[in-house]
Amino acid sequence: MKISLEQKKMPDKWCNILPDLGFAVPPPLTGTGHHMSGIHLADIATNDIIEQELEENKRDIPIPGKIRELYSEWRPTPLFRAERWEKSLGTPARVFYKYEGGNSAGTYEANTAIPQAYYASEQGVKCLVTATSTGEMGISLAMACNYFHLQCKVYMVRSAYEEKAYGRYIMELLGAEVVPSPSSETDIGKKSLAEDPASSGSLGVALSEAFEYTNTRDDAKFCWGTVMNHVLLHQTIIGLEAQLQMREVKAYPDSIIGAVGGGSAFGGLAFPFYRDGKRDTRLIAVETAAAPSLSKGTYRYDYADAAGMTALYKMYTLGRSFVPAGIRAGGMRYHGISPIVSALYREDEIQTKTHTQTQAFQSAVDFARAEGVIPSPEASYTLKAVADEALECKESGKRKDILFVLTGNGNLDVATFNDFLAGSVEDQPFFEDQIDAALGELAEE
Amino acid sequence: MKISLEQKKMPDKWCNILPDLGFAVPPPLTGTGHHMSGIHLADIATNDIIEQELEENKRDIPIPGKIRELYSEWRPTPLFRAERWEKSLGTPARVFYKYEGGNSAGTYEANTAIPQAYYASEQGVKCLVTATSTGEMGISLAMACNYFHLQCKVYMVRSAYEEKAYGRYIMELLGAEVVPSPSSETDIGKKSLAEDPASSGSLGVALSEAFEYTNTRDDAKFCWGTVMNHVLLHQTIIGLEAQLQMREVKAYPDSIIGAVGGGSAFGGLAFPFYRDGKRDTRLIAVETAAAPSLSKGTYRYDYADAAGMTALYKMYTLGRSFVPAGIRAGGMRYHGISPIVSALYREDEIQTKTHTQTQAFQSAVDFARAEGVIPSPEASYTLKAVADEALECKESGKRKDILFVLTGNGNLDVATFNDFLAGSVEDQPFFEDQIDAALGELAEE
Repeated sequence: MKISLEQKKMPDKWCNILPDLGFAVPPPLTGTGHHMSGIHLADIATNDIIEQELEENKRDIPIPGKIRELYSEWRPTPLFRAERWEKSLGTPARVFYKYEGGNSAGTYEANTAIPQAYYASEQGVKCLVTATSTGEMGISLAMACNYFHLQCKVYMVRSAYEEKAYGRYIMELLGAEVVPSPSSETDIGKKSLAEDPASSGSLGVALSEAFEYTNTRDDAKFCWGTVMNHVLLHQTIIGLEAQLQMREVKAYPDSIIGAVGGGSAFGGLAFPFYRDGKRDTRLIAVETAAAPSLSKGTYRYDYADAAGMTALYKMYTLGRSFVPAGIRAGGMRYHGISPIVSALYREDEIQTKTHTQTQAFQSAVDFARAEGVIPSPEASYTLKAVADEALECKESGKRKDILFVLTGNGNLDVATFNDFLAGSVEDQPFFEDQIDAALGELAEE
Repeated sequence: MKISLEQKKMPDKWCNILPDLGFAVPPPLTGTGHHMSGIHLADIATNDIIEQELEENKRDIPIPGKIRELYSEWRPTPLFRAERWEKSLGTPARVFYKYEGGNSAGTYEANTAIPQAYYASEQGVKCLVTATSTGEMGISLAMACNYFHLQCKVYMVRSAYEEKAYGRYIMELLGAEVVPSPSSETDIGKKSLAEDPASSGSLGVALSEAFEYTNTRDDAKFCWGTVMNHVLLHQTIIGLEAQLQMREVKAYPDSIIGAVGGGSAFGGLAFPFYRDGKRDTRLIAVETAAAPSLSKGTYRYDYADAAGMTALYKMYTLGRSFVPAGIRAGGMRYHGISPIVSALYREDEIQTKTHTQTQAFQSAVDFARAEGVIPSPEASYTLKAVADEALECKESGKRKDILFVLTGNGNLDVATFNDFLAGSVEDQPFFEDQIDAALGELAEE
């Protein structure tokens, strides 16, 4: 069942959660440990984005008209009640999902790509640069750049560049320049290739390369796809719409569930509800067993990229040099997690669930067959957690309302599910050792 | 700019154009040339579908509640005004497109798959069978069958089975059985393989195989994806919604444009407007130069499949044994065209445009970069015709309103566009010879 929202009810402000947290989120620091101000970010970000990144007081940030106009090409997105899936699970719970995979980029990352391109255009920037592990941020940004006649350059983790060719083809069709990372275009890329000529890359290295390239051009800026406050801010359009839609069916979520790679989809869904102050609603962040930054990581200042070119962010981290197992959901392999989400976890306001990829993919297949929508590999983790929650309700007989965000469709990743159904996707048994080793290294730093 | 339609305004009746044509469409005949009645179709189709196929008097066919409920998961679909593309074309024309690629199947064929599965379920059918050249009907039917707990079996043209693996993976993920055609499962398939063990198949043969299989099972029925009256009927939901949306912006189309493979998307868009009786609106059917059934074909009775297992339909045809060049848009390679569309063409109510695939794909790339939506290879032909029409307006300075249907998104076909951009897609020069040879054969029959 689709729960629509009238076009004219699309929110016109994003929700900045910082003033409502009731506790302070430790601020970013410069690499030398000093207080961070806008000037330190100006080389890589536009002024409006820096302002949003550092805004601690304003609760509501107006969405400019041009962004609203572009949002409205696919927003409000539908909220669905997954009645067929509920039935197949045999649960008394009502399961609602906010579907962000229906736009032409197929992913929620369009929600932040559009504003970032808009602000860049307003400031006279000519080129936007990003790093992508799954292709989703790259596709979204390529689309957004076209709308504002900007060049788009994407550093794509080499393994994804080779294995996820369709995502790359889409970016190139849209006119973006896609560079496999590590590349020989940057010092960091060259260094990485010198260490391992066959390196399959990592998001951390791709981010560093994108930073290095951005710094060489006065007319280029870098775009984050997750982690940063301003990205989570843009994604709150998800939760703000979902609030209005849940109200339409006179429901309020008992559980709000989302997978966390960098934390932006989860934050975008959860923050507007968190602001309501109903503390009996559980917020559940779902991690992959291959990179459980929140549940296993250390809460400390760390860089957001591999080479240490970013500011320092206080976050749960497995260490910037952590290289997780080669799981299929590239977006879940990041070493850290949004500082705001980290702080909420520190304050015990968020719970975590951790699943392996075969658990996640089985739930994805069940969901796809019931609902007709193929989820992205990343969203599959959410589905496993939701299924568990719904099955708990079956045990207990409680009729809870569960809300989750389905961040993207998996049509371009369907080869992964084909491999899974053929039995060739495994849960590597060395996850625990890998993580313990990374944490050991981190402790010695 | 998106032109929405309120959920409650979604039409509750399909538009049967037959009573409003003002001329008779020659009826289907049995293979022996006799009048066709429902009993001849009962082995392969459900009673409701047969009734719709043969209905000549009722102008409006109510859409059952359960179908409306499922339609409403993605309908009303948005109508867009392609302002960015208009600007890049420099045309004074206003270009509107009805976007049917935003559902989870990514294609308009879901509009007919859902009702066909519903009626089958109501009649106690256990299995639905179809043939697919692009995968789109297969994906749509696999999805629809799950909603009604039906088995789904798809005969997929072997070249597509091998080259369009993602479409196949999606069908299999959704639980459908996908058989490459020609197969050794049927007599027709065996015969075809005996003649050419390396046969890459054709839609005509896949249809025959699907028919043969359906006939072996009492509990199975066959589903058409295009050509037949009932399919065009279901697709009129496209035009009915578009009428309401055009009214919202106080516009009426001067030209209505759609690519024709079998004619169902074009008919679905055009028929409700045709019923308005405004004869100064031009209806433009767009063909591929590789299979121009309307503009080059002969108007005569022909079978709808290769082996001659279907009824005989009066249509423009290149002959059921015509094997067109191996162009990338599988959905455009069919030898015939809907009897209703054929009759309208006979009566000079429809104009045709014919384009090659490189012309089509260049327009698709231009459109994708401007609008952010990647069209299917089939829809690319429409875009070339629309671009030409818009450029004519630029020449003449006339501000026309152009309406077209974007039948599906091309995300699963993006490898085709990648090949095109790399220069490896060509317009084979022997199209004309091939078509002339086929027509020569047909004349001798």
